[in-house]
Amino acid sequence: MNKQVDSKFIVIEGLEGAGKSSAISLVRDFIEKHTGVVPICTREPGGTPLAERIRDLVKIADDTDPLCDEAECLLFYAARAQLVANVIKPALSRGEWVLGDRHNLSSLAYQGGGRGLMPLVESVSRATLGDFKPDLTLYLDIDPTLGLTRAANRGALDRIEVEEIQFFERARQTFLSYAQQDESIKVIDAGQSMAEVHKDILALLQEQDW
Amino acid sequence: MNKQVDSKFIVIEGLEGAGKSSAISLVRDFIEKHTGVVPICTREPGGTPLAERIRDLVKIADDTDPLCDEAECLLFYAARAQLVANVIKPALSRGEWVLGDRHNLSSLAYQGGGRGLMPLVESVSRATLGDFKPDLTLYLDIDPTLGLTRAANRGALDRIEVEEIQFFERARQTFLSYAQQDESIKVIDAGQSMAEVHKDILALLQEQDW
Repeated sequence: MNKQVDSKFIVIEGLEGAGKSSAISLVRDFIEKHTGVVPICTREPGGTPLAERIRDLVKIADDTDPLCDEAECLLFYAARAQLVANVIKPALSRGEWVLGDRHNLSSLAYQGGGRGLMPLVESVSRATLGDFKPDLTLYLDIDPTLGLTRAANRGALDRIEVEEIQFFERARQTFLSYAQQDESIKVIDAGQSMAEVHKDILALLQEQDW
Repeated sequence: MNKQVDSKFIVIEGLEGAGKSSAISLVRDFIEKHTGVVPICTREPGGTPLAERIRDLVKIADDTDPLCDEAECLLFYAARAQLVANVIKPALSRGEWVLGDRHNLSSLAYQGGGRGLMPLVESVSRATLGDFKPDLTLYLDIDPTLGLTRAANRGALDRIEVEEIQFFERARQTFLSYAQQDESIKVIDAGQSMAEVHKDILALLQEQDW
């Protein structure tokens, strides 16, 4: 069986502290067992030398020149366009699987829902990505208060992680709203124990017809 | 007479080697005489600390991670959004005049016309800037072959300046096409001597009802 023609793009999404990193490890191992090959792992924003430089621009606060919401949104899409063109699409066309730590749904949730820029985000998303989208998105759903407590215990928070709780509430509602409309986005209850979260993720992966 | 309520945003546009720098000096002096105050001078991409970092990303070629056309376009608009939000609009609302070395018309010409990305550029332009636009744009029109020869004599060319001549031909046609549709864009024949170019610019400035 030639797995190459079946290459997939799988994305893990979720608020800060939802447990994305351990979920990514789990899914990476699943893909490796399933295909015999370790997937290409990406993170957004970032994942190419230029996109990582853009990541620095959005993560670090500069009080003398505060990043305006529109520029933030456009930087995320510039990094994404670069990653899709130079890493994700070439990997998929070589038959490799790609596992993403965040993708377009994060911009819809954070910049669209959180910042209230949905018309700009939807317009740029359509114009930049066309109909390119992940085959499967696992959205790790968590109460923002719990997630941010976990994230703060991990270390210093970045420019976005210090937003007010309402920002993350709006982002969460947007994640959930897209999941309701799109069969390829699966919601995982990330408020459970890690063992239960992992069990749910594996069950979802195993029920795919890959 | 209170000039503050009459603050204007004037932009100089043109291909490489069209003579933008000397035109900018001339217009800056005109504004200073007309209003008694030196205008805020901006350049695009750039003009804020963050936008200058974005400028570095679009100007420098990286063969290991070539900038894709979509990312290039989005980076220009990220820098522009930042400049408009943090410099141009605040200056205009303080009553100061702003003189721009390039603005949105350059993206329409280079990324829209030159790269063939007009749907993306128009969509991002609308979503980012809304109906914000310069009060007056002076487009210095020059034959690309002549302009690039002048630019090359000035020193090393950047990532965009080394594009093929057809790229600049398409950009020039787009500049001219927007000028035909928009009364606020004036075409100056930049193939003339500098004295004649400056005479034409001053005549255009003097006929404005400022």
